[in-house]
Amino acid sequence: MEPLTAGAFAPFGQVIEAGQLGCHYPINGGSCVRYHDLARLDPGFGGELIASVFRAQPTALPRSVAQFERHPLASQAFIPLSGRPFLVLVAPPAPRPDPQSLRLFLADASQGVNLDRAVWHHALLALEGVSDFLVLDRKGPGANYDEAWLDQPLWLDALEVVR
Amino acid sequence: MEPLTAGAFAPFGQVIEAGQLGCHYPINGGSCVRYHDLARLDPGFGGELIASVFRAQPTALPRSVAQFERHPLASQAFIPLSGRPFLVLVAPPAPRPDPQSLRLFLADASQGVNLDRAVWHHALLALEGVSDFLVLDRKGPGANYDEAWLDQPLWLDALEVVR
Repeated sequence: MEPLTAGAFAPFGQVIEAGQLGCHYPINGGSCVRYHDLARLDPGFGGELIASVFRAQPTALPRSVAQFERHPLASQAFIPLSGRPFLVLVAPPAPRPDPQSLRLFLADASQGVNLDRAVWHHALLALEGVSDFLVLDRKGPGANYDEAWLDQPLWLDALEVVR
Repeated sequence: MEPLTAGAFAPFGQVIEAGQLGCHYPINGGSCVRYHDLARLDPGFGGELIASVFRAQPTALPRSVAQFERHPLASQAFIPLSGRPFLVLVAPPAPRPDPQSLRLFLADASQGVNLDRAVWHHALLALEGVSDFLVLDRKGPGANYDEAWLDQPLWLDALEVVR
């Protein structure tokens, strides 16, 4: 498990947070700072971005993980709304998720993620309590959901992946 | 001042929240509920939607309000990330904001808003403390910002507009 930073997460997408490194500037007469254009939101050809809320039950640890999904046509972003951390378990685009390439990130309550299209990811892994997330993803034609199972389930053991 | 409800806010845009009335269904094997497609996110012709974070200082009440803005080309959404309520002061599309048509809504910490294009609105009115908001708006060509001042400033007095 690793903390979520823009650099470490770059192979999978972007971290959506008010960071000091990116473009930011005062607006509204100085009463507000705009941290600008934080993600490559990508609805894909013929699609549009929509906003939904996901209300996720917290995951119980330790647990096994075997099922992964990806969205081949578009990006998908998750922004926590409930002030709780969550886990992001991802693998790079490939025909199937590679167990050796899995990465487990701990997002704090002020960090969202945008997954680039075709990044394998586990379903939401909320922590601590029922948690709402704003989700930005695609509406449009075509099959935008693939799923795959690992040959051997992995054990997610108190925030570490045990292979 | 009025509580923020989808019906009351309909002339100005949509409320982004996990409500029981709209389309919602279980996903991820039942561990999550998706409240689906909650807003008319509208990047406008030739534009794309971008995600930014606004970090707003809380507003001090009572205060005067005089300056309004609108985005004629696209929608703009604000989703609170800091667990605090905020105020939404809006007027319907018109050549200038009509003081008699102003509406002041109190959004609770679990409610975002999406402003339809050309809806007049005051700058963010955060409450209680420094508050982050996810903002979804347009990147693209053209002038997407108008501002206007009321002839007579209004007094925002402990959550009421005094005309």
